[in-house]
Amino acid sequence: MKNEMTKITRAECEARDRADPLAKFRDQFVLPDGVIYLDGNSLGALPKAAVLRMREAVEQQWGRDLIKSWNLHDWIGLPRRVGAKIARLIGAKPDEVVAADSTSVNLFKLLAAAVRLRAGRDVILSEPGNFPTDLYVAQGLIDLLGGRHRLELVPGEEIEAAIDERVAVVSLTHVNYKSGRVHDLNRVSAAARAKGALMLWDLAHSAGALPVDLNGAGADLAVGCGYKYLNGGPGAPAFLFIAERHQDTISPPLSGWMGHAHPFTFDIGYEPAAGIARNLCGTPPVLSMAALDAALDVMLEADMNEIRKKSLALGDLFLTLVEQRCAGHGCRPGSAARHERGSQVGLVHEHAYPIMQALIARGVIGDFRAPDVLRFGFAPLYNRYADMWDAVDALRQVMESHAWDAPRFKTRAAVT
Amino acid sequence: MKNEMTKITRAECEARDRADPLAKFRDQFVLPDGVIYLDGNSLGALPKAAVLRMREAVEQQWGRDLIKSWNLHDWIGLPRRVGAKIARLIGAKPDEVVAADSTSVNLFKLLAAAVRLRAGRDVILSEPGNFPTDLYVAQGLIDLLGGRHRLELVPGEEIEAAIDERVAVVSLTHVNYKSGRVHDLNRVSAAARAKGALMLWDLAHSAGALPVDLNGAGADLAVGCGYKYLNGGPGAPAFLFIAERHQDTISPPLSGWMGHAHPFTFDIGYEPAAGIARNLCGTPPVLSMAALDAALDVMLEADMNEIRKKSLALGDLFLTLVEQRCAGHGCRPGSAARHERGSQVGLVHEHAYPIMQALIARGVIGDFRAPDVLRFGFAPLYNRYADMWDAVDALRQVMESHAWDAPRFKTRAAVT
Repeated sequence: MKNEMTKITRAECEARDRADPLAKFRDQFVLPDGVIYLDGNSLGALPKAAVLRMREAVEQQWGRDLIKSWNLHDWIGLPRRVGAKIARLIGAKPDEVVAADSTSVNLFKLLAAAVRLRAGRDVILSEPGNFPTDLYVAQGLIDLLGGRHRLELVPGEEIEAAIDERVAVVSLTHVNYKSGRVHDLNRVSAAARAKGALMLWDLAHSAGALPVDLNGAGADLAVGCGYKYLNGGPGAPAFLFIAERHQDTISPPLSGWMGHAHPFTFDIGYEPAAGIARNLCGTPPVLSMAALDAALDVMLEADMNEIRKKSLALGDLFLTLVEQRCAGHGCRPGSAARHERGSQVGLVHEHAYPIMQALIARGVIGDFRAPDVLRFGFAPLYNRYADMWDAVDALRQVMESHAWDAPRFKTRAAVT
Repeated sequence: MKNEMTKITRAECEARDRADPLAKFRDQFVLPDGVIYLDGNSLGALPKAAVLRMREAVEQQWGRDLIKSWNLHDWIGLPRRVGAKIARLIGAKPDEVVAADSTSVNLFKLLAAAVRLRAGRDVILSEPGNFPTDLYVAQGLIDLLGGRHRLELVPGEEIEAAIDERVAVVSLTHVNYKSGRVHDLNRVSAAARAKGALMLWDLAHSAGALPVDLNGAGADLAVGCGYKYLNGGPGAPAFLFIAERHQDTISPPLSGWMGHAHPFTFDIGYEPAAGIARNLCGTPPVLSMAALDAALDVMLEADMNEIRKKSLALGDLFLTLVEQRCAGHGCRPGSAARHERGSQVGLVHEHAYPIMQALIARGVIGDFRAPDVLRFGFAPLYNRYADMWDAVDALRQVMESHAWDAPRFKTRAAVT
């Protein structure tokens, strides 16, 4: 086998960086010296454009133009404008997406809408490996609605077979947060449609990481996250997608004034805005949304197919290097096969937590996902091939030297 | 009458500024030249501390420390820490308040919690003059729950008499957004308690504007806004209060991972965190919350009784000057009497909209509330007595010259 015969050198990785059509994007991000950042799937790096935009939003717009900025700088239009930018990344029309609230809150809105659009059906179908908040939100909704629905969880590979006439909505995360496995968007959406169920995708680990075509797949609903591959900053606003055909039949459960047809006439009665806007609720977090808006402009300059190509190449390289350089240290691949992998890989190790802490202490930042996964995310706009070599070399050192076996690496932090 | 006999001079206003114990706070805000800002009740001015904090949060924390900031800079603790600061302004214990989401979303959480805590009662009681989103959210919740509850609206002065055993929750805004009238927090809370109903206060126009003592009043629930008198920036996170006695009996309807007992063990089943934390839902908007956190430190340096005293004095002065200088122009006071007034006054005029636009063009910024109210808010930390004189003088000029009667002032903007 080639991998065992010819060890990849750092010089070869550097050569790939020189030939990389996306290499120019790295300079558009603030990246600290001495750090290899493989956690863009948890918090995307800071785009330089966001630095300028935040100074402008705070110091010029808020500070100087004050309340007038709602019109003057179209703060009021941000949720729609940001949504329209995200739409371009996920195969949606501009008027099918808004940026708003958190992913969890948006999940609540769409699950509630879905069970009402499919009244008479009582199952929300998902998988045990879905991101926990997706399951929690469904549980809370079901409880609120009096227990007339239930959440059924079946393993991902059995989802399609489990969809039947009892299912109101199939709720899945497109790319699994832990294994990186990608669901077949087209096939699962079609299976839902064939049984009259609605399809709700969580694109937290997809948007900005790989090409997504919601309308091509005939998906009904989607949510996603602004602070991972979209680089919108910590706790950036999330987004939601509703296919045009459903928009005017949805009664928003979170019926706030920003989703009213005429928010500034201050009527007593709620009248939902036409289209996607009714899914807005309270006043948008302008500062956080401004950062996301600026970050999206960087992302939209890049070709999503190039991003996907490099993302897979980075992952392949990383795994090959682990195989070549880290054998015999009790580490095994914990992620999906190449053809069904998102923009991350996982390595399983019984000491995953302290190993990751020791890696972070050496400047290689990935993250830990309980109970035993070392997770490495690849952001093709700023990660380099040579970074893969250096990261795996640091991993090898940590495991060879048992550097992880120190008390300071074993104390669990509040956020892991 | 004194007002008619002796006209107040600008010099007298300046003298009051020199004697003002809060005057030193003005320098802690960024205020544009040539502007008299009487709209802090809609968007508080920018504290200089927030400028520095935002640069730090974006450029140092996000840019340099990246994902590590969740622990290193305690991003994860922000909702609790910011909540504890707000608690000091509203008569709550530190563990009774969290900063999260928008006011509308928090209203949904607490109204849903309230109708479940008072199962068997089917009325949400409010007033027609409540801020519209408070009514909309109640309507959406009732609709979601299948129409088993109803929203009853009675005029504010009849609220106490209308509370009976059918009422699950009384939902009122403490200071009316349009008239500025203040409800009697103690009396209405006691009336609710006497009938076994829960009391939910919206403190959007109270927190930071006047002393509030939720626990002194025995209130059960409250929400409020971060971007008005708390100066937290456009769309700043809101807050919610739950009296300790209710916290562990609440099943959060928006059951996201940030409210889970162990968010980072990634369990499949939702287990609510102990206490107030279960009312968190998704990932907090860190950047927006950092600005609010910095702004609160400024507010907490001031004495709330001094703030209230000056707020009433500014309002009195403003109204007296209007009476002395603007008579005969069709403008009449539209706000509550002094003893029941928040930190704002309203003037009613049939041409309120273009008059306000003409005032804004002259650098005097208040706002318009449909259909006919000119609204002026007073922020004692940065508004001066001389500002009242200048603002009323500009109003006089606009009305005398009919400057408002120009087409450019009559075009309605998206946000009024």
